[in-house]
Amino acid sequence: MQDDTIVAISTPPGVGALGMIRLSGPEAVAITHQAFRPAKLKEATGHSLHYGRFFVKEHPLDEVVVSVFRAPRSFTKEEVVEISFHGSPYILRKALTELVRLGARLAEPGEFTQRAFLNGALDLAQAEAVADLIASSSAGAHQMALAQLRGGVSDELKGLREQLLNFTSLIELELDFGEEDVEFADRTQLNDLIQRMLARLSGLIDSFKLGNALKQGVPTVILGKPNAGKSTLLNALLNEQRAIVSDIPGTTRDVIEDRIVLEGIEFRLMDTAGVRETDDQIEQEGVRRSLSLAQEASFLLYVFDLQTESPVEASGYVQELDLPSDTAILLLGNKTDLLEAVPKIPTLPYPSLSISAKSKEHLPTVTHAMVEQVQAFAHQQPGQPLISNVRHHHALTQARDALLEVRQGLAYGLTGDLLTIDIRTALHHIGEITGEISTDEVLGNIFGKFCIGK
Amino acid sequence: MQDDTIVAISTPPGVGALGMIRLSGPEAVAITHQAFRPAKLKEATGHSLHYGRFFVKEHPLDEVVVSVFRAPRSFTKEEVVEISFHGSPYILRKALTELVRLGARLAEPGEFTQRAFLNGALDLAQAEAVADLIASSSAGAHQMALAQLRGGVSDELKGLREQLLNFTSLIELELDFGEEDVEFADRTQLNDLIQRMLARLSGLIDSFKLGNALKQGVPTVILGKPNAGKSTLLNALLNEQRAIVSDIPGTTRDVIEDRIVLEGIEFRLMDTAGVRETDDQIEQEGVRRSLSLAQEASFLLYVFDLQTESPVEASGYVQELDLPSDTAILLLGNKTDLLEAVPKIPTLPYPSLSISAKSKEHLPTVTHAMVEQVQAFAHQQPGQPLISNVRHHHALTQARDALLEVRQGLAYGLTGDLLTIDIRTALHHIGEITGEISTDEVLGNIFGKFCIGK
Repeated sequence: MQDDTIVAISTPPGVGALGMIRLSGPEAVAITHQAFRPAKLKEATGHSLHYGRFFVKEHPLDEVVVSVFRAPRSFTKEEVVEISFHGSPYILRKALTELVRLGARLAEPGEFTQRAFLNGALDLAQAEAVADLIASSSAGAHQMALAQLRGGVSDELKGLREQLLNFTSLIELELDFGEEDVEFADRTQLNDLIQRMLARLSGLIDSFKLGNALKQGVPTVILGKPNAGKSTLLNALLNEQRAIVSDIPGTTRDVIEDRIVLEGIEFRLMDTAGVRETDDQIEQEGVRRSLSLAQEASFLLYVFDLQTESPVEASGYVQELDLPSDTAILLLGNKTDLLEAVPKIPTLPYPSLSISAKSKEHLPTVTHAMVEQVQAFAHQQPGQPLISNVRHHHALTQARDALLEVRQGLAYGLTGDLLTIDIRTALHHIGEITGEISTDEVLGNIFGKFCIGK
Repeated sequence: MQDDTIVAISTPPGVGALGMIRLSGPEAVAITHQAFRPAKLKEATGHSLHYGRFFVKEHPLDEVVVSVFRAPRSFTKEEVVEISFHGSPYILRKALTELVRLGARLAEPGEFTQRAFLNGALDLAQAEAVADLIASSSAGAHQMALAQLRGGVSDELKGLREQLLNFTSLIELELDFGEEDVEFADRTQLNDLIQRMLARLSGLIDSFKLGNALKQGVPTVILGKPNAGKSTLLNALLNEQRAIVSDIPGTTRDVIEDRIVLEGIEFRLMDTAGVRETDDQIEQEGVRRSLSLAQEASFLLYVFDLQTESPVEASGYVQELDLPSDTAILLLGNKTDLLEAVPKIPTLPYPSLSISAKSKEHLPTVTHAMVEQVQAFAHQQPGQPLISNVRHHHALTQARDALLEVRQGLAYGLTGDLLTIDIRTALHHIGEITGEISTDEVLGNIFGKFCIGK
């Protein structure tokens, strides 16, 4: 338990109907008690509400409602007080100053959640989920953060780690017997466990691509020849005139980026300059950037003009781009409105649709195909926990590498003392995720990115 | 009592640690109950706190704390629920939509406070003080709003109105006796009351200038000849390089405005173009604006260069401006740092100081003199209630005019039926302030300016 009491404004900055100040620590109630009348907060029971006035020295500052949470029945497991003021920045500032004068300390970013972690109310992955939850701006990101907050991945990892830890103890016990040739830890069972863990870890590692895309938005590049209708498609998807469109090929030179949420998944759409051979130096630079973005994207929307480019040509062009194998790809044959008959698209290596970006009638088909592609490229079962955190991804990868070593060691019949080195490494990295293993530096990195008051 | 239940987000927009949604109305608890688990909110007592999960249909949305206030022990005197979410705009939007689906209606701006007024928890002047309190950005504005919220002026006006109402009843009783020459209402006592009310109303009306200046900031114009050091003074007061300063006379052309709070009073400082005869058309326009601003200001800081302009000359120049009699004026003889000896300033019609804006050493003296001048020009006793609201000022003025008519009528010995017309008018206007007399239009005007969720 921390022995000081922290305080911070917990509501977003600016003017609003309400503004909230929160305290946590042994003196939270006693400090607020000094500034509050008429109720005697010191005697308040947990989970109680008190209406009254907040004083700065002897001067009334505001009429407030105080919520009292008694340890350990609070989210930090400490004494917690929340004071609801009128939402004036002036009042909040004055009140904060007064609470510091009375003995509270200004909280660092994320310090409330950090205390919840240190006091065992949350594990580290859950604490990180709090920040993700606050930042979530789509249903996908939100559900992922909420699942993580509720312990989704943590519980499973803790269970696996526990089993592995038992084996390590047994192997280490063997070492105590030194020269005697005892084997407490059943190698076949250990091998089974390692296999199970490897499968699970690989699944989680693979889920990172989708998880991260859900959290950050799927980087989606709209590529195609000049005048294929890329900007028209962007505008149609965003339902606004975001990009300048004209009949003149090469209208778009800069990359135009905007965000859209489709069926709960956020896409970061990037409209690019049309790709073609050109002597114009500015346009050449644009083309170079378009192709380079396509290489980095998670999702490529290749738009082509059905009047001038056949589906087979389009597919061939995309194949030549030689994109990373996990890039999701969707071909969009555009300008059906200008064709007398819509050609039947032959079987291609990529999913493809005939559309008219201009008429917008195919828009629902396009957006639905986009969502399907994203879900497909991650090979992810719905409802399975996803990893969206770079730190977790890194730790899981290191744990997997160590487990691969253990498996190999088992195959080679290595002795226990050699096996335990790699097992310990795996245990360490899995423990990092839930915070069973943590350092001040790691904690500082994690909680330093939180907002103040959380 | 209103028969529907309103809902709104009460915290400022944006991402924060906490976000709050508030409901008020007969179904506030029942509606929240449907979206909340595990506690049975329907059975919750007043002033209780409940931790649990908020659901959208059957999907968990967030972990929340719910505060339940039972009617009439809430600020609207209705059933009130406040739900504290993680401060994600996405979560708040989803939760708001769900509460509307479950039967709540989106609140209009100020509708919570309007209900508090309609249910008798606040009078109208107190309700208006809520908005002022939230908007207050200086100690002066804050104290005024808090005094008004606590009923300062209201109580006094209600008392006076009550006494006047009693007299009216008595006079109207006389009328019932028709031809008989009875006099239930003592005319001498009535005259005394009218005199007392006139004195009090005049005091409040006069306090509007200071009250409004405290609320909006005191419009303060810095005037002077070119190169007198006006911009240097502005920068020194603001403690930043707000205005471009140079040795070249006429550097400032546009009016530069910024705000500063001194000893709890906010000043709106306006730095202006130097006033001089000039052929430059742009500069002429600047000079014209400077002089016109000085006419409208509540406070004039006249800055002059002690090397080239004597205090007597400066004072004479200001006198010739013929400013409104209630403009506060302070003369500042500048550039003492360039003088070998600081001249003794003779007795002038205006308070004056010798300063060096550049060295900043006189800054505390200047700011203190500014605060004193503002307090002095309002002839206001400290601690007396101030009027800061245009609507109140208007109503008080109309009430005073009607009372002056009554006083004259009494002097002329007018009959009761004629007196009551003006007394009723005065009663009406005083009642407008506290809301004893109000129309939907007036209420719409007042509460429409509130923020949503208040």
